[in-house]
Amino acid sequence: MKIKVIGLFFILSTFNLSIQAQTQYYKYVDPFIGSEGGGNVVVGPTCPYGMVKPGPDCSRYANAGYRPDMKSPVLGFSQVHVSGTGGGAKYGNVSVMPFMGELASIKQTSLREDEKATLGYYSVILNKSNIKTELTASHKVAFYRFGFNAPGIRAVKLDAGEFLNEGGNISARETQHFVGSQIKIISDTEVCGYNRVRGGWNSGRAYTVYFHAVFDKPIKNFKTWKTDKLFADKKEQIETGEKTGALLSFGNDGATIQMKIGISFVSEERAKLNVETETPNWSFEEILTQTQQKWEKLLSRIEIDKNASDSYKKMFYTGMYHSMLMPVDRGDENPLWKSKNSTYDDFYAIWDTYRSSHPLITLIDPKRQADIVNGMLDIYQFDKFLPDARSGNSNGRTQGGSNAEILIADAYVKGLKGIDYKLALKAMLNDADVAPGGNEEQEGRGGLIDYNKLGYVSTDFVRAGTRTVEYSYNDFAIALVAKGLGENAIYQRFANQADNWKNLWRDYTSDGVTGFIWPKDAKGNWVDSIKCTSAKMLNTTIAFSPRYVNIGQCEDWWSGFLYEGTSWEYSLSIPHDIAGLIKLCGGAEAFKKRLDTFFDKGIYYVGNEPAFLTPLLYHWIGKPELSSDRILAIVKAKYNDSRKGIPGNDDSGAMSSWLAFHMMGIYPNAGQSYYLIHTPMLAESVIHLDNGKSFKIVAKNLSETNKYIKSAKLNKNEYSKSWIEHADIEAGGVLELEMSDKPLNWGTTDLPPSLRFK
Amino acid sequence: MKIKVIGLFFILSTFNLSIQAQTQYYKYVDPFIGSEGGGNVVVGPTCPYGMVKPGPDCSRYANAGYRPDMKSPVLGFSQVHVSGTGGGAKYGNVSVMPFMGELASIKQTSLREDEKATLGYYSVILNKSNIKTELTASHKVAFYRFGFNAPGIRAVKLDAGEFLNEGGNISARETQHFVGSQIKIISDTEVCGYNRVRGGWNSGRAYTVYFHAVFDKPIKNFKTWKTDKLFADKKEQIETGEKTGALLSFGNDGATIQMKIGISFVSEERAKLNVETETPNWSFEEILTQTQQKWEKLLSRIEIDKNASDSYKKMFYTGMYHSMLMPVDRGDENPLWKSKNSTYDDFYAIWDTYRSSHPLITLIDPKRQADIVNGMLDIYQFDKFLPDARSGNSNGRTQGGSNAEILIADAYVKGLKGIDYKLALKAMLNDADVAPGGNEEQEGRGGLIDYNKLGYVSTDFVRAGTRTVEYSYNDFAIALVAKGLGENAIYQRFANQADNWKNLWRDYTSDGVTGFIWPKDAKGNWVDSIKCTSAKMLNTTIAFSPRYVNIGQCEDWWSGFLYEGTSWEYSLSIPHDIAGLIKLCGGAEAFKKRLDTFFDKGIYYVGNEPAFLTPLLYHWIGKPELSSDRILAIVKAKYNDSRKGIPGNDDSGAMSSWLAFHMMGIYPNAGQSYYLIHTPMLAESVIHLDNGKSFKIVAKNLSETNKYIKSAKLNKNEYSKSWIEHADIEAGGVLELEMSDKPLNWGTTDLPPSLRFK
Repeated sequence: MKIKVIGLFFILSTFNLSIQAQTQYYKYVDPFIGSEGGGNVVVGPTCPYGMVKPGPDCSRYANAGYRPDMKSPVLGFSQVHVSGTGGGAKYGNVSVMPFMGELASIKQTSLREDEKATLGYYSVILNKSNIKTELTASHKVAFYRFGFNAPGIRAVKLDAGEFLNEGGNISARETQHFVGSQIKIISDTEVCGYNRVRGGWNSGRAYTVYFHAVFDKPIKNFKTWKTDKLFADKKEQIETGEKTGALLSFGNDGATIQMKIGISFVSEERAKLNVETETPNWSFEEILTQTQQKWEKLLSRIEIDKNASDSYKKMFYTGMYHSMLMPVDRGDENPLWKSKNSTYDDFYAIWDTYRSSHPLITLIDPKRQADIVNGMLDIYQFDKFLPDARSGNSNGRTQGGSNAEILIADAYVKGLKGIDYKLALKAMLNDADVAPGGNEEQEGRGGLIDYNKLGYVSTDFVRAGTRTVEYSYNDFAIALVAKGLGENAIYQRFANQADNWKNLWRDYTSDGVTGFIWPKDAKGNWVDSIKCTSAKMLNTTIAFSPRYVNIGQCEDWWSGFLYEGTSWEYSLSIPHDIAGLIKLCGGAEAFKKRLDTFFDKGIYYVGNEPAFLTPLLYHWIGKPELSSDRILAIVKAKYNDSRKGIPGNDDSGAMSSWLAFHMMGIYPNAGQSYYLIHTPMLAESVIHLDNGKSFKIVAKNLSETNKYIKSAKLNKNEYSKSWIEHADIEAGGVLELEMSDKPLNWGTTDLPPSLRFK
Repeated sequence: MKIKVIGLFFILSTFNLSIQAQTQYYKYVDPFIGSEGGGNVVVGPTCPYGMVKPGPDCSRYANAGYRPDMKSPVLGFSQVHVSGTGGGAKYGNVSVMPFMGELASIKQTSLREDEKATLGYYSVILNKSNIKTELTASHKVAFYRFGFNAPGIRAVKLDAGEFLNEGGNISARETQHFVGSQIKIISDTEVCGYNRVRGGWNSGRAYTVYFHAVFDKPIKNFKTWKTDKLFADKKEQIETGEKTGALLSFGNDGATIQMKIGISFVSEERAKLNVETETPNWSFEEILTQTQQKWEKLLSRIEIDKNASDSYKKMFYTGMYHSMLMPVDRGDENPLWKSKNSTYDDFYAIWDTYRSSHPLITLIDPKRQADIVNGMLDIYQFDKFLPDARSGNSNGRTQGGSNAEILIADAYVKGLKGIDYKLALKAMLNDADVAPGGNEEQEGRGGLIDYNKLGYVSTDFVRAGTRTVEYSYNDFAIALVAKGLGENAIYQRFANQADNWKNLWRDYTSDGVTGFIWPKDAKGNWVDSIKCTSAKMLNTTIAFSPRYVNIGQCEDWWSGFLYEGTSWEYSLSIPHDIAGLIKLCGGAEAFKKRLDTFFDKGIYYVGNEPAFLTPLLYHWIGKPELSSDRILAIVKAKYNDSRKGIPGNDDSGAMSSWLAFHMMGIYPNAGQSYYLIHTPMLAESVIHLDNGKSFKIVAKNLSETNKYIKSAKLNKNEYSKSWIEHADIEAGGVLELEMSDKPLNWGTTDLPPSLRFK
C-alpha cells in the first residue's frame, strides 16, 4: 500500500519539474542548525519521517552519532539514527566505512574535513586516505558515493555488529546491548545481513535492523569477521551471538564506488526489495532530487515573506524540517503485527512533541497526522497501551503524563478525518483506568492507583507533581473527546478530574508570589523536605521549594517530584484551565506580577517543554503585547541560524516547531482547537492548506519598533480576539494584523478559552 | 556451547551401542497414551525438551494438531507443537504435505490409515494417493520420509503461512494471528523461509519460526504462492503481509523422497546450520537411533521392576517421557537477548508443572533442572518478570500464583548447583513486590496491591481465592530461600505472609465439615453471592458455596473466585502448613472425616492440579495407609495404558509425572525437601542418580492384598517416618518397604513436616 503511494509520487514529481524551478524552500534548510551545543540533531540526509537517517558516527555515545568537533574521528556511517534527543542514544545500526589498502584490520577510522550538509545531502573528506564520502537517502535506502582521490586499493568496511551506546551490563540504564548479527556476501555486488540490539534509551525489547547493500563495482576481494577474527574464506558469518562484518575491496581502479544500502525491520529480502523499489538506478542525483522534492512539497505548504532575511528563512524552514523527522513512518514494515495502517515508531517522546510538533504537522499535513494517530491506535490495540514514548518497536520511557491523550484530543477538535474516535476514546480510557505496573516508565500512567483514589499522585511515587499536573490535563482531553462523542458519564468524570491539579496547589509564598504545586503524601500532608535518592546523599534530606531543581546532588529527573522543571514552571503549566489558574493565583494583577517575576528573574527556560506555553499566558489577562515581548526576547536570546541555534536538545523537533509557530505569530494550545495570536517575526506567512485553501497571516508595518498588534482583521472584518480557531484557518482567508509601536485595546477583552469542552 | 555438548553426546553414544542392547526402556513409551479423551499430547517424534515436535495436523484447532478420529483428514504436518495443553492452541507453524499429481491447487489434504507411533517415530498412510509418511526428529530438525506407492508425479507442499488456531479478529482470546511469512526456493534441493505469528493461548507478542528444508531429490518443477495465487515463475515470495508457500514436484520416479526441515527462532541461516549440525547425513534410521538414545539415557535413570506388567511399564515410561517434552530447550537461539544460559520457552504453565514434573526432572536430571531455573532467571533479568507461563518468547497467562517461587525453592532445598540464589531471591521478591499492572494475566501477581495491603486478595480482583492461597505458599517459598541465605528480615516478613491463606478461612459448615476458603471484599466482609460475569447471566447473582464451580453459566475459570477448582479443593491445598490446616479444620479426627467426605462423595478430581497432593494428606494425621488407598483408587480409575489413559489434559506432563511418582511410591511436596512414602505400584524402582549413586525402593511382598506398608528400613535401619528427605535419596541406598494386608504402626507417629523453613 505504502509502496504504491510512493511510486505514484515519483510519477507525479516527474511532471512537476517546472513548478520546482520556482519553489526551492528546501534550500533554506540547514541540517547543521542544532548540531552543536546539545541540539543533537541528525546532520545526514533523510526523507520526511524517513526510516533511514544515515550519517557519520564520530562517537559511539553521541545521540545522533555526530560530533561537531573535527578532532573526533569518523568511526563509520550508520544507517539509522534519531534526531535531537537527550538521554542515552538508540540505534546507530550497521556501519559503513570506506578506506584504502589491504583488508588487514577491522579498525578503520579517519579524521575529516570540508563537511557539507544540505537537505538530503551530506559530504565529507575523510583525511586519512583523502576519500570524499557523499550521502543521500530515499525513505528506506541510504545511498553512498565514495570518491577515491589517491592511488591504491579501494575498500569498504561493512559492520553488521555495530550500534551506538553499547552498555557493559544489562542493568546499565539507557544503554544498548548486543543480541546478534549476521553478514553474507551473496554475489560480487551484494551483501546482506542484520544487526539485533536491545535496550537503549527506552529500555526496549530487541529489534532487528536488516540490510541489503549493493555496489556498482564488483567486489574483488573480501574478508569477513566474527568478533575479532578475520576469515578470507568465508562469505557468510551467520548469527551465533557474535559481532560480524566484512571488509570488501574493489581493486585499484575507478574514482568512485557507489553503494546503496536498503534497510528493513522485517527481513533481508525486504531490505532488498526496498532497494529495488526506491532506488532502481545508480543515479545519486536522482535520489537526491526526489528527496528534495518530497521535502519541498511539505515545506512549500508555508510560504513566508519573500523579503525576510536569509537568517529567518533558514531558521523557519529548518524548524519545519526538524519537525518532520520523527516519528518514523515504517509503512507496512512491522515485525509485530499486520495492519492496514502504517506503522509509526520513534515517538521520542510525545511528552516533547505533542505541544508544538504535532500541531504543526496537523496544520500543514493533516492526513499525515491522522495516519500517525492511527499508527498509535494500532500500538494500543496490538501492544496494549498507547505510547508516550516508543522506539525500536517497544513502548518505553514515559516521562510525565499519558500525553497521547492530548494528541488525540488535538486531532479530534481539529476535525482530522479517518480516525476511529470511539476506539481512540477506548485507548485513552485504558491509560486512565489500567495501571501499567512493573516498570512504570514503560507506558500508561505511573502512580495511577494513587491518582484515581486520592485525586493526586502522592510522594510514594516518583514524578508525582508532573504526573498529577499532566494527568489533569490528560483527563481534560478525555472529557473533551467523550463529550463530543456523547459519552456523558465519561465526560462528567473526567471533567471533574481535570481539576485534580488543584489537589497539589498549596498557598505557599515564595519570590513574592503565592500558590505552588507542592509534594503531598498519601495521607494528605504537605511534604516539605525531599529524601535524597542519589548514592552520594542517601539518608539526607533537603528542603523543597518552588525553585528546587531535582537534578543534581540529591535526585535526578526520574526520581524527583517534578520532571525537567521546577514548581515555578509546573505551577504555570495548566493549559486547559488558565482562567482557573489565574483565580487561584489571586487574580489578573497578581498573575501579571507572577509572570513578570518568572521571566524577569530568569526562572523561565524554553529548553524544556513544560514552559512552552507560559510566555503566552499574558493573553489570558488581556495583555497579549506582553506575551509578544517575552516571545521575541526568548527567540532572540535562544535561537539563531548557527550550529548552536537551538536551545538544548531539539527533542525530535519540539524546539524547532515552537520556533516555526512563533515566527508566524500563532501558537497552538495543543489538545484545544485554537491558536494564540501574537506579534509575528515574519511580515507575511501563507499556509497552503490540505483542503486546497490558503490562509495568510500579514503583519502590516511590522518593524523593530512596530512590534505590537494595534488591531486585527479576519477576512477584512474587525477581529478583536487574541486567538483564532483552527476552523477559521481551515476556511482560508487573511488575518491582517495592524502593527504599531504601542499596543491599543486589541486582545484586551475577549480572552482565550479556559475549560472549554468542545 | 549447546552444539558442542550435543556433538560430544554423539561421540559417546557411538561407544555406547553395547550398553544400548540391554537397556531399551524407550520401547515402553507409547506416544498415543493421552492422545484421546482430551489428553492433547503430541504424538509425533521429539527429543527431550525438543525444539521441533513435528506431527500431523488433523484440525486447525486441536491443541497439538492431532485428532484421533480417522475421519479428520490430515491437513499437513507442522513442525512446532506443544503437548498436553488445554485452552487455545499455539504454534503449528510451517506445514508440510506430500501429495501426487500436478501443482494445481494449494489445498492438499488426505484421510489416513495405519497410524503408528513409537518414541521418536511416527508413520501414517495418506489414503488419497497411498503415500506412507514417516517422521523422526533431532532436537531442532524434523526428518520426513515420504514413500510413494502409486505411479505419478511425486510432490510436496511446503506452507510457510500455516499455523494452528487462527483467530478472526485481534481481540479474539487465545487465538493466533498472522503477521507475515516468506518462502524461497534457493537451490534445486533447498527451500527456506519463515512464519511469523502473534497471540495464541498466552496472548504473546509475535514470534518467528524460520525454516530451512532440504530434499534428497532435485526439485523438477515448482509453483510458489502468495495468498491464493500460484506463480510458476517466482522462486521467492518475500514478506509483504500475505501467506506464502510452495508446491514442489520431483518427477515420476523413485519410491521415496526424504526431507529434512531445520527450525530456528533466530534466522533462516541458523535453521540451515541446525540441519547441517544435527542431521548431516540422509539416514532416517541414524537420526531415529540418536533420538532413542537421548531418551534412553534419561528414561534409564529409573529402572523399574523387570517383572512389572507391560501395561505398568508403558504407563511409567510414557509418564517419564511426557514429563520431559516441555519446557523447550532452545539453546542459544534467542531473538531477544544474549546470555551464557540456555534459553527455555514453553512453560505452559508452571502452575501445572511445578508440583510433579519439575521435581521428577530434579530427581533424574538435576543439571537440567538447574539449567531450566537459570533460563527462568534470564527471563526475569531480560524480560522483567519470572514466567508463570511463557510461550513464543512472551510471558503470559498466569493462572494463579507466581509459582516460579516454588520451583526456585525446590531447587534450593534440594541443593541444585550452579544457580545464583541471590539473584533468584531478587527475582522472587520482584514477584512479591512489583504489581504486574495492565493485563494481570501476563506475569507477576495480579491483585498484589490488595494482597500486600489487606493480607488477601479481595473480590475486587478475579481469581482472588486461588491467588491468596497460592501467594501464601509462594511467600513460604520466599521465606525458605531468604532464611537459607541469611536474609532474616525478608524471612520474617514472608514467613508471616505464609499464613495469609487464613485470612480467607471462614468457619462455614457444609457437607458436615467446617471451614472453607471464602470470598471476602476489600472491607473485610464475607461475600456470599457471586455477581455473574457471563453475557447470558449479567446482572444476576448466584450463591457461593464450597462446592460452587466457577465454570458454567455464571462465570469462567478466569473471572471467578477460584481457578480450576472448588473451595473444597482449595481449602485442602495448603502444602506448606498442613498441620496448621488440620488445626483449623478441628483436629485430626475432623480432618479425617473431611478427607473421607472429599473422596467418598466424589468431590475430588485429579484432572486439575490444585488437588494433586490431597490424597496424601492422611499422612499428616498418621494414617498413610489411607493415602495409599486413595492413590491406588485414583490411578485405577483414571490412568491406564490406552489412548485415553490420562485424566484430562496432560498439562505438559503434569498428569504423567504425578503418575510416575506414585507408581514408585514416593511423591514430592514441591518447594520442600522431602517426599511422602506410600504404597508403590511397582515392587522395585531404582533411581540412578546424577551423582553416580543409586537409590532403590523395594516393596517386599507387594500384591493386590498386601497393599499396606507394615514397616520400612532405610539402608537396613528401621525407618518409621512416612516421608524421606531428598538428601537421603541423594546419598544412595535402599528403602525397603515391608508390605502386608494390614497396616501396622508405620508412619503413625513421626508426621511429615509443616511450616519448616529449611
